Amino acid sequence: MSTPIEFFFDFASPYGYIATYRIDDIGARHGREVAWRPYLMGAGFKITGRKPLVEHPMVNEYAYQDLQRTACLYDVPFTLPDPFPVATIAACRAYYWMLDQDAGAAKQLARDLYDAYFAQGRNIANANEVIDIAEAGGIDRDALGAALQDPVIKQRVRDVTDKALERNIFGSPMVIVDGEPFWGVDHLDQVERWLETGGW
Amino acid sequence: MSTPIEFFFDFASPYGYIATYRIDDIGARHGREVAWRPYLMGAGFKITGRKPLVEHPMVNEYAYQDLQRTACLYDVPFTLPDPFPVATIAACRAYYWMLDQDAGAAKQLARDLYDAYFAQGRNIANANEVIDIAEAGGIDRDALGAALQDPVIKQRVRDVTDKALERNIFGSPMVIVDGEPFWGVDHLDQVERWLETGGW
Repeated sequence: MSTPIEFFFDFASPYGYIATYRIDDIGARHGREVAWRPYLMGAGFKITGRKPLVEHPMVNEYAYQDLQRTACLYDVPFTLPDPFPVATIAACRAYYWMLDQDAGAAKQLARDLYDAYFAQGRNIANANEVIDIAEAGGIDRDALGAALQDPVIKQRVRDVTDKALERNIFGSPMVIVDGEPFWGVDHLDQVERWLETGGW
Repeated sequence: MSTPIEFFFDFASPYGYIATYRIDDIGARHGREVAWRPYLMGAGFKITGRKPLVEHPMVNEYAYQDLQRTACLYDVPFTLPDPFPVATIAACRAYYWMLDQDAGAAKQLARDLYDAYFAQGRNIANANEVIDIAEAGGIDRDALGAALQDPVIKQRVRDVTDKALERNIFGSPMVIVDGEPFWGVDHLDQVERWLETGGW
């Protein structure tokens, strides 16, 4: 039985957001599940020497243009939010808390959080905003509110992030297919080809 | 009459090298000339806050894997050279000196220099190596040797680089189609689509 495709992303990553509109279809065409793995990408910046996109003049201007163009290409609603980027720890905690109960509901919550931020401009750094978004999707707000303060859930997000770094996962989106890493929404065509051919 | 596609790259950029195996075919399929524009990408690092790939732990390991995989996908002979990266000012000067005499010969020289570095591991930072490579392609070694010291040619490379930066060109490869910039060999499929559709 084939292992799931792993899909790593940060909730503040617009390229990760665009990838959510494609990755499950790619998996489905090849009979593969896709395990969504949000993590805190910023934790790796000290190791890799990378910085947030907005801290790179010129590169950021290009990226904003490229994001609009890429979102348009894949019919993804997209407006660069303000503030950008934001801390995504509450969104991550909500996701993993939900994942332990219902993987499908967790994936839907991830979509709702991403859409709220990148299509509606809602600030998902705010735990109350995360709870509102979850509640609109049918999740119990009190239970989620408690979970966001739960030390076990907090540790879960730290562990996911630490393990991602241990595996040299540093970007968003970063897709692992049978141990092979592919970085960037612009690598999803290569992911698809790899799934078709098992490598080349 | 359509304007040429502009293809910016640095001779030390392996992704730029891979792009040389694809870009002219893409242009030709759409009846477009491709103007090759080597420049000194490092000049922009201070402005953009970017650093050479090798200075990013984890990212560099991924990139070496991605480069092998991408070169394999497009049947491009590739071995990461040592030293990597290298200064490419001599290669740039040789290119623009040749360009003023014969655009086709300049493009062939660029291919020869890139192949020498990324397929044969020859150190193109060394002006004598550049001259040897050029001579093997039929270029007069004494004339080129003089050109590499010519203040006019030196200024030419500075101007090309300054003008690229003024136009927000910072990467390699970076392809400009009718004013629209596309960064990365993984964006060449988008370049092709843009040429087909005139935008989307």
